[in-house]
Amino acid sequence: VSLTRDAARALDAADPLRACRDRFRLPDGLIYLDGNSLGALPEATVERQREVVEEEWGEELIRSWNSRGWIEAPQRVGARIAGLIGARPHEVIVADSVSVNLFKLILAAAALSPDRPVLLSEAGNFHTDLHVASGAAEVARLRLDIAPREAIAGRLGTDTNLLLLTHVHYKTGARFDMAALTARAKAAGARTLWDLSHSAGAVPLDLNGAGAELAVGCGYKYLNGGPGAPAFLYVAEHLQERLVSPLRGWMGHAAPFAFTDDYVPAPGIARFLAGTPPILSLIALESGIATFDGVGMDAIWAKSVKLFDAFLALVEERCAGHGLECISPRDPEQRGSHISFRHPNAFELCQALIAQGVIGDFRAPDVVRFGLTPLYVGFEDLFVCVERIRDILETGRWREPRFAVRGKVT
Amino acid sequence: VSLTRDAARALDAADPLRACRDRFRLPDGLIYLDGNSLGALPEATVERQREVVEEEWGEELIRSWNSRGWIEAPQRVGARIAGLIGARPHEVIVADSVSVNLFKLILAAAALSPDRPVLLSEAGNFHTDLHVASGAAEVARLRLDIAPREAIAGRLGTDTNLLLLTHVHYKTGARFDMAALTARAKAAGARTLWDLSHSAGAVPLDLNGAGAELAVGCGYKYLNGGPGAPAFLYVAEHLQERLVSPLRGWMGHAAPFAFTDDYVPAPGIARFLAGTPPILSLIALESGIATFDGVGMDAIWAKSVKLFDAFLALVEERCAGHGLECISPRDPEQRGSHISFRHPNAFELCQALIAQGVIGDFRAPDVVRFGLTPLYVGFEDLFVCVERIRDILETGRWREPRFAVRGKVT
Repeated sequence: VSLTRDAARALDAADPLRACRDRFRLPDGLIYLDGNSLGALPEATVERQREVVEEEWGEELIRSWNSRGWIEAPQRVGARIAGLIGARPHEVIVADSVSVNLFKLILAAAALSPDRPVLLSEAGNFHTDLHVASGAAEVARLRLDIAPREAIAGRLGTDTNLLLLTHVHYKTGARFDMAALTARAKAAGARTLWDLSHSAGAVPLDLNGAGAELAVGCGYKYLNGGPGAPAFLYVAEHLQERLVSPLRGWMGHAAPFAFTDDYVPAPGIARFLAGTPPILSLIALESGIATFDGVGMDAIWAKSVKLFDAFLALVEERCAGHGLECISPRDPEQRGSHISFRHPNAFELCQALIAQGVIGDFRAPDVVRFGLTPLYVGFEDLFVCVERIRDILETGRWREPRFAVRGKVT
Repeated sequence: VSLTRDAARALDAADPLRACRDRFRLPDGLIYLDGNSLGALPEATVERQREVVEEEWGEELIRSWNSRGWIEAPQRVGARIAGLIGARPHEVIVADSVSVNLFKLILAAAALSPDRPVLLSEAGNFHTDLHVASGAAEVARLRLDIAPREAIAGRLGTDTNLLLLTHVHYKTGARFDMAALTARAKAAGARTLWDLSHSAGAVPLDLNGAGAELAVGCGYKYLNGGPGAPAFLYVAEHLQERLVSPLRGWMGHAAPFAFTDDYVPAPGIARFLAGTPPILSLIALESGIATFDGVGMDAIWAKSVKLFDAFLALVEERCAGHGLECISPRDPEQRGSHISFRHPNAFELCQALIAQGVIGDFRAPDVVRFGLTPLYVGFEDLFVCVERIRDILETGRWREPRFAVRGKVT
């Protein structure tokens, strides 16, 4: 037997990260395996949000921009993220959404090499990346080249302006070799822009070490920043002064409160700010990142690997013959921190699981995906999840009509 | 005497909007005249934010996108704003920041008339508008023409692509005649993009009636949405299907959860969404707008006019000879809902006032500005404010060195 419930409990008891679970407020009886879509609520966020609403906004009002440090929050929170992704504190800033940040960096990079007309990305990349790329390409008069995963390296050439890749694939969890591809692009004279949405807080990252020059990432997945938390953006120090954002808002100005007509980009990473940041959501992101305090990404990753292996072994043993096909790489070095299965009735399976208190998510057309967030997911959670999958598939309960009903977000 | 304290109290007692003040949590003893910079905390926001954090995020987790209507929030809150600005519910959506929305609409409009190369705006317009305009003009290969206020109408010509104006000036409070200028631009074959940041929730607006085609506005000023609340964007119905946002994020896709590589803009206003919206800040904006429930903009504006007239009369009588020069238009039809004075020591005066519990704000280089937000500002507030201005100027207390210290946001 791959793992008994008792053995799973023993693994949890011995888990050096077990205490981190108390940093989150998880509903009783719910098994939450969707932290790669929306991270769970950190316990500390509850009080901190009350404070920012009632005290900072309610009592201090406008003065909080100075007295409570709202104005520096994009840099301050960015510096915290930098520590999780192998960047220097002044190379990361929190701003806008992943989509908007992608647009900024694609256009800024395009302007650096006007003789290189191609923006290269991956077919089946997360679609907002491809949509933003198509809009940015039109505006920057680049040609968008969408290549299958295996063909990407071969397409790099003297015409490549920018290679836009998502480091960990949202569906399969497949992970690119950041250092190798960045070097390969560099050898071709191209820059690389990494989307770290499924990487930051999930896998060990060393942006500086990998020679990464440009990246964006998401605040509401593994970073636990809350629904729609603002995103982040990374620009390697040596490039910062050479790039200008096409989105020139006042917060990216060298002197936002001088109220001058002329735009002078702020020195460093702050030039990639645009408008006023959504402070309530930004402060929630700060609380979310604090759930990583004192925990190394190596420890998190080591547990993720064990969770994945246990989950896969359980599924292969307990759900054999029920048509679940794991589409995530088995080699830990080639994957992120979620596990995905193809199944012809993935949608209904996912809904039936939710009805039984296990939350994963469905990704069209036929994938069910489970986020393995080591800060709050344990081995017993996985054991119970797989038992319920088995039960649903064996009984055919997924056929109940209610499990075929689709919401707007499915 | 212009107004005694007793008379001011009597005006407050007779004020039909007096009860609205209870919709806000205002610190005891503080006179807050900066609601045009950051609206006060609505009482209902406190509980609603607790609910969205603890229940919707904490308990419902990812399911809230469907079950609590997060996914429709941009449209739902937009429709509420539409009711305040004379637009139809499907013509307004909440998204991103004012800066980002300006960028989207400038580029979308530019593409409609590729033969018209000029983007026209006002010198001394709020600087983020000019900064965004400069970036957007570069990207869209438009020529940015920044004209003095009085020269704008005369500059409209066959080369004008877009006229970008802020309806109520952030510094002086001067208000453009929206219908007249929109018509004038239209006669020249140009479109107009209105920034309503100091107008929405402040002055009566009839975007449809004025023939306005494009507008953006701010959520954290008169709409009481909280620090950095998301902004809104208006596109007249007849233009919506002809415009495509350059910022093509998944939330603006016709089928965001189909995960297709190709971008198909959503029908209608939703195509102007980009990335995932910051839900905590967005729900706070919804609570902010609810402070207008049951109150007509006409009643709000009628009180604003009275507040302005009382303030000006008090300053002219009580502070005569102290160098305060009102730079806001005296004709109500030509102004917004704040009053501004030039003074050589405006910065120090503003700081000295804050130290005495009266919050207005300073706008470089020499303007002190007071927001008259009729939902929560009363006549006695203004009386006390002017008495403190008088006291500070008469005693020369503004000369204390501590009042010259500048924060990052000043």
